[in-house]
Amino acid sequence: MPHTPLPERHALIELKDQLPEQIVEAGPDLDRLARDSSRYSPQGHPLAVVMATCTDDVVTALAWANRHGVPVSVRGAGTGLAGGAVAYDQGLVISMERCNAIRQIDPVNRLAVVEAGVITADLDRAAREHGLFFPPDPASVETSTVGGNIATNAGGLRCISHGVTRDSVAALEVVLADGRIMHTGTRTRKNVVGLDLTSLFVGSEGTLGVITAATVRLKPIPPGTSHTFRVNFDSIHAAGEAVTEIVNGEAQPEVLELLDTHSVKTIEEFYPSGLTVPKAALLIGQTVGHNAADDAKAITDICARHGGSDVVIAQSDELLEARRLANPALSARGLRVSCDVGVPIGELANVFRGIDEIAAKHNRKISIVAHAGDGNLHPTVEAGDTEAEYAAAEAVIVDISQLAVSLGGTISGEHGIGAVKHHELPIQLDAAVLDTQRAIKQALDPNGILTPDRAI
Amino acid sequence: MPHTPLPERHALIELKDQLPEQIVEAGPDLDRLARDSSRYSPQGHPLAVVMATCTDDVVTALAWANRHGVPVSVRGAGTGLAGGAVAYDQGLVISMERCNAIRQIDPVNRLAVVEAGVITADLDRAAREHGLFFPPDPASVETSTVGGNIATNAGGLRCISHGVTRDSVAALEVVLADGRIMHTGTRTRKNVVGLDLTSLFVGSEGTLGVITAATVRLKPIPPGTSHTFRVNFDSIHAAGEAVTEIVNGEAQPEVLELLDTHSVKTIEEFYPSGLTVPKAALLIGQTVGHNAADDAKAITDICARHGGSDVVIAQSDELLEARRLANPALSARGLRVSCDVGVPIGELANVFRGIDEIAAKHNRKISIVAHAGDGNLHPTVEAGDTEAEYAAAEAVIVDISQLAVSLGGTISGEHGIGAVKHHELPIQLDAAVLDTQRAIKQALDPNGILTPDRAI
Ligand SMILES: Cc1cc2nc3c(=O)[nH]c(=O)nc-3n(C[C@H](O)[C@H](O)[C@H](O)COP(=O)(O)OP(=O)(O)OC[C@H]3O[C@@H](n4cnc5c(N)ncnc54)[C@H](O)[C@@H]3O)c2cc1C
Ligand SMILES: Cc1cc2nc3c(=O)[nH]c(=O)nc-3n(C[C@H](O)[C@H](O)[C@H](O)COP(=O)(O)OP(=O)(O)OC[C@H]3O[C@@H](n4cnc5c(N)ncnc54)[C@H](O)[C@@H]3O)c2cc1C
Repeated sequence: MPHTPLPERHALIELKDQLPEQIVEAGPDLDRLARDSSRYSPQGHPLAVVMATCTDDVVTALAWANRHGVPVSVRGAGTGLAGGAVAYDQGLVISMERCNAIRQIDPVNRLAVVEAGVITADLDRAAREHGLFFPPDPASVETSTVGGNIATNAGGLRCISHGVTRDSVAALEVVLADGRIMHTGTRTRKNVVGLDLTSLFVGSEGTLGVITAATVRLKPIPPGTSHTFRVNFDSIHAAGEAVTEIVNGEAQPEVLELLDTHSVKTIEEFYPSGLTVPKAALLIGQTVGHNAADDAKAITDICARHGGSDVVIAQSDELLEARRLANPALSARGLRVSCDVGVPIGELANVFRGIDEIAAKHNRKISIVAHAGDGNLHPTVEAGDTEAEYAAAEAVIVDISQLAVSLGGTISGEHGIGAVKHHELPIQLDAAVLDTQRAIKQALDPNGILTPDRAI
Repeated sequence: MPHTPLPERHALIELKDQLPEQIVEAGPDLDRLARDSSRYSPQGHPLAVVMATCTDDVVTALAWANRHGVPVSVRGAGTGLAGGAVAYDQGLVISMERCNAIRQIDPVNRLAVVEAGVITADLDRAAREHGLFFPPDPASVETSTVGGNIATNAGGLRCISHGVTRDSVAALEVVLADGRIMHTGTRTRKNVVGLDLTSLFVGSEGTLGVITAATVRLKPIPPGTSHTFRVNFDSIHAAGEAVTEIVNGEAQPEVLELLDTHSVKTIEEFYPSGLTVPKAALLIGQTVGHNAADDAKAITDICARHGGSDVVIAQSDELLEARRLANPALSARGLRVSCDVGVPIGELANVFRGIDEIAAKHNRKISIVAHAGDGNLHPTVEAGDTEAEYAAAEAVIVDISQLAVSLGGTISGEHGIGAVKHHELPIQLDAAVLDTQRAIKQALDPNGILTPDRAI
């Protein structure tokens, strides 16, 4: 074991004694658990992985790491795109994938109590047996964990109507850096007792504690039918203006996504479905409820007024499929370096214009897929598979981040900061915020063992 | 000035030099600004009040207080019921009532930027000129400030449909204890950059910093009509069960409030309106939108199935009037010591049963007004105007708080902790939460000048 100096290796004996069944020190599982889904993160060779099976295992692991000053990364399913869960060199990985019991579904109070490692879609399916559903639906829903969704405050396709993960979290069970267990929140709709530690942990990306279980809010499955629609646009700015008007209109979509020509073309090449490739952008969406058909009509009428054409309305999910295939198709085509900026809804046309200019300035293709209804964009920059190409693409991303912030926006709408975007924090956050974050981190984790130097 | 030892008085000269127009040291305004609307709080005689006119005044005042270790209380309009804003002995009061500019209404992004001292209803009226409204609507809406609403995460009648104040806050301008200005949040719908400091400050009751301005979310005024309804119940438990079923039903009310017989009787005595006094409880509510009439019918049908009678549906706000008059009427009748517990919606019948038992055990009348649709109750305990009577009533409140927490609930759904409920914190919060709160407080305010020994 050439990577590990003696002292840590020696200390590990103590942890193996306490958690003999849970420790992984070598083998393919170690490699898998040392990574997440980010493309280039500073991944190290970990000392070991703890496959926690319950809250007490996490307590044991953290108390040990804190005592020995070993850096810890926390891992749900490793679908994260920001390198927040990747292993530290000589660090400990705490994997939550075996903490995956659904402890309770409470249909009367529309709550579920789940362990952090429950797969998002599994919770959703369990809820549906009671006529309810779990609102957060990142495209990774079949593989991501609820704990990971909470730790990143994940978004998804339905955010425009059901909010972000934060809006679905009522209470948390957390293990703090020194191994103490903490319970935040309540099962009620309202609660103003003390500081809102639940919100503080949502989106904290493993920096403040390990979320071991959560009480989450479920919603009733909307009655009525659902309709999907698609509209082509000759101008992406016009599409942006249409979205702004839709969001401010009466008929509200449950999903409203935008794909630019380049994305649509790439998807069509990979998964031919007979989509007419738009001149500039494709808007797809879904309406639900008793007025779903009328709402789809009202929304596509707005699009038509903004120059939209080739309108299709269907009574199935089919039109949304293209959106789900965007990620794999784009990355297979060398569009690898993506970002996750957000702007106020009224700035959509402006951000598209600005991205055009950035593409021209850098002479590099930028393809856009967007949760348009939330003003959340995933521009992806073309880059060859070399260090130099990545660096060049990264410079484009920094320009896009600066553009978004200049429009009152954010450098990350849903993927988080992790390791990958850490250098971009000062683009958005002022010195007082950066200091305050560090002070809170120091207060909760004085030895700095939890996900150090990432996210905040 | 007999109350003030020389050193502070001397130091004050320095502050008066910097803020000559803003300092109040004596007179009726000092008395008014040293209090809030809580009935019995440990109010002290302040050194002075700073009538801040802008963010920079707050910077100056806090930097001064931090340098001299002077305790600071922060005051919006002083409508708070928890003693959070009352003056400390030899302390400084920072009043935000003159920081009351509406900086911007942005109808396209449905945002408003306001200074902390803006009166809640003034913001709402300004928004309505653009077809929008500001969702938070505490019964104090005509006098409370937006900053106070945020600092207490205020609730109100419309929470059941529009959420709590937290749900309407996008970004904050805050002055930290040492006078640094911090900007949290963004103007976007989604933002996962760093820790959620916006949420941390919402509900922080003046303990972490002074909120000087906020970017808040507005909503479109619902189209269609609004209907109000009222139903009498012979059993409060049956009313609780009806509420649980309504909340889990398809037709959703915008407002759903419960008043027990005693409250209705008291209100009728004060403001006779010809209400039939129910045997046990009155449920009143409002529906809005295109289906308002059908929804009101569907909701009152559920009530009828649970034994509800004397159903009235009207196309005006009139039936809600009784609810707004509850507070003044009850307190004028010697029902003075109230609390603010919350329970999960499925526990409403149980909490009513438990409160019956507590009333019997203490042999003291307890009257209940509730934001029933949120599971948020304001039981008020009868008490004479003496110390001994207050103490006896307080013991009843502690029992009710313990009951609520045992049902998965909270000791405060909307009024906050302040000074008045500080001793109750351990009923709800575990040791790790209490420690974590203290650690965060210490990290942000090392000299402990901001609202010390309250709220957390
Ligand atoms: C194909 C694909 C599509 C995606 N689509 C979306 C999308 O639509 N919306 C979206 O928001 N994201 C999306 N993502 C990103 C990712 O799926 C989400 O961020 C997801 O929430 C991560 O969950 P996870 O369990 O895989 O977490 P991980 O990747 O394991 O971890 C993510 C971060 O959370 C921390 N963490 C994980 N679990 C815990 C815990 N229990 N306690 C404390 N910290 C913890 C980690 O330390 C890390 O910082 C997508 C990813 C892929 C690969
Ligand atoms: C008749 C009546 C009805 C009420 N109805 C409701 C109701 O329906 N729902 C509800 O939730 N509450 C209600 N309340 C309580 C109260 O109105 C709310 O808590 C309101 O939000 C307080 O606003 P304020 O501006 O008066 O704050 P204050 O009373 O001045 O202060 C309240 C707390 O917030 C802090 N604070 C105030 N401004 C700032 C700031 N700018 N920065 C930092 N901290 C600050 C104070 O330090 C204090 O801890 C009612 C009160 C009354 C008297």
